Amino acid sequence: MEESGPRSRTKPDRAGTARERGVQTDSRGQGQAPRLSKGNLFTLLSLWMEIFPQDQTEGDQCYNVCVSQINPVGLVVVKDGKVLGLHSSGSELHAGQAAILEHRAKLSHSSLYFSRRPCATCLKMIINAGVSQICFWPSDPEVSIISEEAALDALASDKLKSNSRAHICVPLQPLMPGLAQFVTETSRNGDFMEKVAEDDPEVDLDLGLLSEQLRALASLSSRFLVSSSEQHQQVLSRMNLENFCVEPYFCGLRHNMEQLVQVLSAVVAGVPGYSNYGFYSSDTSAPPQSGPGHGPDPGPVSAEVAVHCMVQARLLSYRTEDPKVGVGAVIWAKRSQMGGLYLVGCGFNAYPSGSHFNEFPQMDDKQEDRQRRKYRYIIHAEQNALTFRTGEMRSCDASLLFVTKCPCDECVPLIRAAGVSHIYSSDLDQGRDKGDISYRRFKHLIETWACGRSIAQGLQMEISYLAIIWCRTSLFYA
Amino acid sequence: MEESGPRSRTKPDRAGTARERGVQTDSRGQGQAPRLSKGNLFTLLSLWMEIFPQDQTEGDQCYNVCVSQINPVGLVVVKDGKVLGLHSSGSELHAGQAAILEHRAKLSHSSLYFSRRPCATCLKMIINAGVSQICFWPSDPEVSIISEEAALDALASDKLKSNSRAHICVPLQPLMPGLAQFVTETSRNGDFMEKVAEDDPEVDLDLGLLSEQLRALASLSSRFLVSSSEQHQQVLSRMNLENFCVEPYFCGLRHNMEQLVQVLSAVVAGVPGYSNYGFYSSDTSAPPQSGPGHGPDPGPVSAEVAVHCMVQARLLSYRTEDPKVGVGAVIWAKRSQMGGLYLVGCGFNAYPSGSHFNEFPQMDDKQEDRQRRKYRYIIHAEQNALTFRTGEMRSCDASLLFVTKCPCDECVPLIRAAGVSHIYSSDLDQGRDKGDISYRRFKHLIETWACGRSIAQGLQMEISYLAIIWCRTSLFYA
Amino acid sequence: MEESGPRSRTKPDRAGTARERGVQTDSRGQGQAPRLSKGNLFTLLSLWMEIFPQDQTEGDQCYNVCVSQINPVGLVVVKDGKVLGLHSSGSELHAGQAAILEHRAKLSHSSLYFSRRPCATCLKMIINAGVSQICFWPSDPEVSIISEEAALDALASDKLKSNSRAHICVPLQPLMPGLAQFVTETSRNGDFMEKVAEDDPEVDLDLGLLSEQLRALASLSSRFLVSSSEQHQQVLSRMNLENFCVEPYFCGLRHNMEQLVQVLSAVVAGVPGYSNYGFYSSDTSAPPQSGPGHGPDPGPVSAEVAVHCMVQARLLSYRTEDPKVGVGAVIWAKRSQMGGLYLVGCGFNAYPSGSHFNEFPQMDDKQEDRQRRKYRYIIHAEQNALTFRTGEMRSCDASLLFVTKCPCDECVPLIRAAGVSHIYSSDLDQGRDKGDISYRRFKHLIETWACGRSIAQGLQMEISYLAIIWCRTSLFYA
Repeated sequence: MEESGPRSRTKPDRAGTARERGVQTDSRGQGQAPRLSKGNLFTLLSLWMEIFPQDQTEGDQCYNVCVSQINPVGLVVVKDGKVLGLHSSGSELHAGQAAILEHRAKLSHSSLYFSRRPCATCLKMIINAGVSQICFWPSDPEVSIISEEAALDALASDKLKSNSRAHICVPLQPLMPGLAQFVTETSRNGDFMEKVAEDDPEVDLDLGLLSEQLRALASLSSRFLVSSSEQHQQVLSRMNLENFCVEPYFCGLRHNMEQLVQVLSAVVAGVPGYSNYGFYSSDTSAPPQSGPGHGPDPGPVSAEVAVHCMVQARLLSYRTEDPKVGVGAVIWAKRSQMGGLYLVGCGFNAYPSGSHFNEFPQMDDKQEDRQRRKYRYIIHAEQNALTFRTGEMRSCDASLLFVTKCPCDECVPLIRAAGVSHIYSSDLDQGRDKGDISYRRFKHLIETWACGRSIAQGLQMEISYLAIIWCRTSLFYA
Repeated sequence: MEESGPRSRTKPDRAGTARERGVQTDSRGQGQAPRLSKGNLFTLLSLWMEIFPQDQTEGDQCYNVCVSQINPVGLVVVKDGKVLGLHSSGSELHAGQAAILEHRAKLSHSSLYFSRRPCATCLKMIINAGVSQICFWPSDPEVSIISEEAALDALASDKLKSNSRAHICVPLQPLMPGLAQFVTETSRNGDFMEKVAEDDPEVDLDLGLLSEQLRALASLSSRFLVSSSEQHQQVLSRMNLENFCVEPYFCGLRHNMEQLVQVLSAVVAGVPGYSNYGFYSSDTSAPPQSGPGHGPDPGPVSAEVAVHCMVQARLLSYRTEDPKVGVGAVIWAKRSQMGGLYLVGCGFNAYPSGSHFNEFPQMDDKQEDRQRRKYRYIIHAEQNALTFRTGEMRSCDASLLFVTKCPCDECVPLIRAAGVSHIYSSDLDQGRDKGDISYRRFKHLIETWACGRSIAQGLQMEISYLAIIWCRTSLFYA
Repeated sequence: MEESGPRSRTKPDRAGTARERGVQTDSRGQGQAPRLSKGNLFTLLSLWMEIFPQDQTEGDQCYNVCVSQINPVGLVVVKDGKVLGLHSSGSELHAGQAAILEHRAKLSHSSLYFSRRPCATCLKMIINAGVSQICFWPSDPEVSIISEEAALDALASDKLKSNSRAHICVPLQPLMPGLAQFVTETSRNGDFMEKVAEDDPEVDLDLGLLSEQLRALASLSSRFLVSSSEQHQQVLSRMNLENFCVEPYFCGLRHNMEQLVQVLSAVVAGVPGYSNYGFYSSDTSAPPQSGPGHGPDPGPVSAEVAVHCMVQARLLSYRTEDPKVGVGAVIWAKRSQMGGLYLVGCGFNAYPSGSHFNEFPQMDDKQEDRQRRKYRYIIHAEQNALTFRTGEMRSCDASLLFVTKCPCDECVPLIRAAGVSHIYSSDLDQGRDKGDISYRRFKHLIETWACGRSIAQGLQMEISYLAIIWCRTSLFYA
């Protein structure tokens, strides 16, 4: 609490964490790290979308539709291996309906990953749009089996399923061994944790992380897992999935579920809800934008939404091809009219698409020979997110980049030219220069923010580049 | 005339019309209703587009180009079985040129249905854009055969036709037997007619409908049919279509034309031009928006245009797969800048695309067993129009949904979320609940309009949901 | 200097230039004119893009990135035989990065023509985007071989090249014999030159043109050609292209380069930088828009940029299929926010796409029989540019059409309806009527400009049609 100005980042690293921070090649894992499969990534994202924080400010007249008990649903739309959309149930629309309205004919030949079986009304429209695959997690479906409508809905879903040409299935992929452990380790060594430890050396990080993880596990398990096997078999029967109850398939299904939820808990624990931490403008020299008592301006989305999106970026980072460090990036935009967020793109660091394993050098800066280092060959997460973005980034909408690692000098001009208006990161390396990878431009970007904002008030459409960094809120009140 | 407040809809149904109004499963036809073929639907739409009311308020400087006598032309652009655009000749652009400018490279591999043979200038550009099929109705072409240029134009058209790879042909499909009669019946039993009869029991509906239909038939025949066979053969000869004059082909061509015009007349008669009726805001409790003497606000398009678009929706409804009731929907948008309407999408009620005949239940609410009813399987007209829309619905443009049936509770949230700003309907069922199909939300939508508008004045871009219903204008003056 | 009002264009043609000006069928060449091949056109455009004038008004904070010596690069993106984008290096982004951000996934299966070998950072992103062909001109690459980084960059480029599935090559196509001479002739007979001669009969046009051409040749040669064979072989070696140094290939490579640069010089000489000439509003009756001393308003882009784009249009005109006269058109748009130009479309006059050689008549208005004239079959340059445009023309952005010939009455309504706001032309035929081709509407368009502007001030979004013609600036000060 003794730091009240811009924080000095010169304190010596604590013993045991004396790694070279921020260089994109930290040896966080040893050797070849376990990777998330595509199917598991999409399933995890769909589970996580189910609990996307609802924007309460929409002010939509809720018609109190209580036809039947409806479970909220998360949905990931995938086409040609790329994420086309991330959706969740809202007060008016089911996730499936939202996807129909946003993607329309583009849904043709796509795959849809639902966090639960969608209701028959959504299903018929999705099939009508020509999707080729519909995956869902077999727990209590959208029209809850405790409702009266459930039996009629199940029957209709079954009829639609058997008469349509879309492949309707349950995603079931065993996880790479050691993945949950690997995720816990990277969470433990992440900059989030480090900053907490730095600010208050009394904190026991391992204990804190563990309790955070257990809290997440309890909450996620109660939502996604079915506690007893008997109950689960009843659910599957009412969904006409009796054949799933046959052993050893049934046991494997439940085991894979548990593992996925464990991984998700470990990822969530890496962006913890500690009371005094959150995402705020890194420009700590500027006075807080809001009045006293309210704290500093968290940007165009609430702190809760920012944390949620950062978890998405972290999930993506476990798909990396880089054996040493994974980086994930997600870009969302906020409609200036009618409100609501829509996905612009997402990506992770990888070798050029279409290249084979080990085609390019994988050595990092510990390698003497600069010719053989990987830097010249790897595509950064932000670059992939920008190149393969599927949504428009309109100049009138705020666009938010969530990235698990501070953008380097190679990416900053791309991010700026693409029109991203807000960057959320938790990394400590802004302004540093680490040989082949430099983060000096990013620091520059931040420092010009305050001045950029005042310009923006004159030129109404000027975009202010606002970097929002995970930091301790109490600093703002000092 | 005794109703001056919100009209009570509780009067007993007249004898002979005691059907269950508004339930989407009225048995209007008996058994399998005759259906319009795709080719005939597109031809009918192209004929109807030829007489699309010209917006006189465009204020374009007309250059009085009288190079030669030019007939106005209607055009329907079809790609992958979907209507991509509906165009008509304007004061500056031919229909073909308007389609080129709007669809550009998207015209590649599309089919174009013209109401007349386009001029050589349009034809060369259309062929250049790579369309795969050009159909036209063989009467007096765009460059009228009474003009001096006609011979040169015919020669150039012929040369372009023979040298291009596009298939240029005359659409010729016999109609389903009984279609004209079926259309007349549905027009007779429609809500338009019913309301007229209800308001004034003195009116003889059958006589009124018949005279309306005869009026439309006379007007459409004089425009599209060629009265004498000899004259028609002369026209075909000057268009280098002498081979069409061979019997029995020639006789069949003229017969099919007559039948199509008859069907169109019957559809038009269902949205009659009675002096005291038109499309106005259903919010009758609100005072008329315009001053006295001008009558109430008809929305962003003139009453004439609204009637024209409702006829398009009715034409689409005859493509339905539902044997009992057909519903058609058309969405247009109005450019906030530069004026002009453009098509957003259209559709009719049908089983999921790709499903085979009789794959899904076709039973309605008279069926006891709720499991076997069709409601859970059929895609509503609005849902198809929204899913397969081909135009952008920009938030700055007014967007108008014309639908032959009041949107149900399942569709209202979709329509709202898609951003439709005006709904035109002629149905009486708003606010009703008919078991499996409920129209309660739509009523809610209408009642909130007045308040929605006042909000809109504050937030300039707020979209007011305005439902516009066919009703008796005199009610506004009471 | 005696003309101070609207200039009279009735002076008798000078002896020796008594051709029928402006009719789109001037016999500028004799017989079948030599044509630019596609590959050579794209290479020429890429060279020319390298020296696209940088907009100095962008006001971007330049970070003075001097990592290594970077040569500016020009880039042409081609897909399905159409130009998708024209890019050049800016203060922040390399040309390759700009193309990635603008075209994104659309780059997949495209061909990229670079004016130099791109750096490894651009190359990896381009390969990642899935392009199928990368062509470059083998001189000093983007990361200049005189820099320290050059060797590392060359190695990385080479590795990326050999591991990717994109075909990376050097475009090498011999020119049609006589092309340079043909270009010089058309430049000599163009309206630019004619106007200069008309304004001051003392000027020796041939001498002026020759000196202009030599000036351009010197400047372009020093930039693109490598003076000595030995030096060139060294460059190729450092780029790992030693196999290019083998004779006779090496000699042919250098010869083709020289020829291309000669052609470009001749094209550039046709739009000369004479001190008193430039592109300004043709509405000479209106007072100059800017204050005295500044001269008249040159429109939304600087005179330098306008000349640059007109050269692009001239380059395109040499791809024409018309044996007599070539016309080229380029449409650019200027972002209202964030500044910067983007390509909307380009084209040249040609027979309908897909037609074979000699399928349509090629006779012009000297042919007696009107039936056999080409006018009814040829697609004008503007029509091709508008039909196959690849960029959006947003109503909020200024859009600029550069066309080597005054648009005819057939094209003016298309240009107006498409929303083009500024037309740049150097042709003298506005207001003329030449039988089958009339330019009367264009004159009308110009004359209404002054009034159109005053309307525009009221209706903020009204588009004013502004024709900008190459003319003598001194006339404005008389």
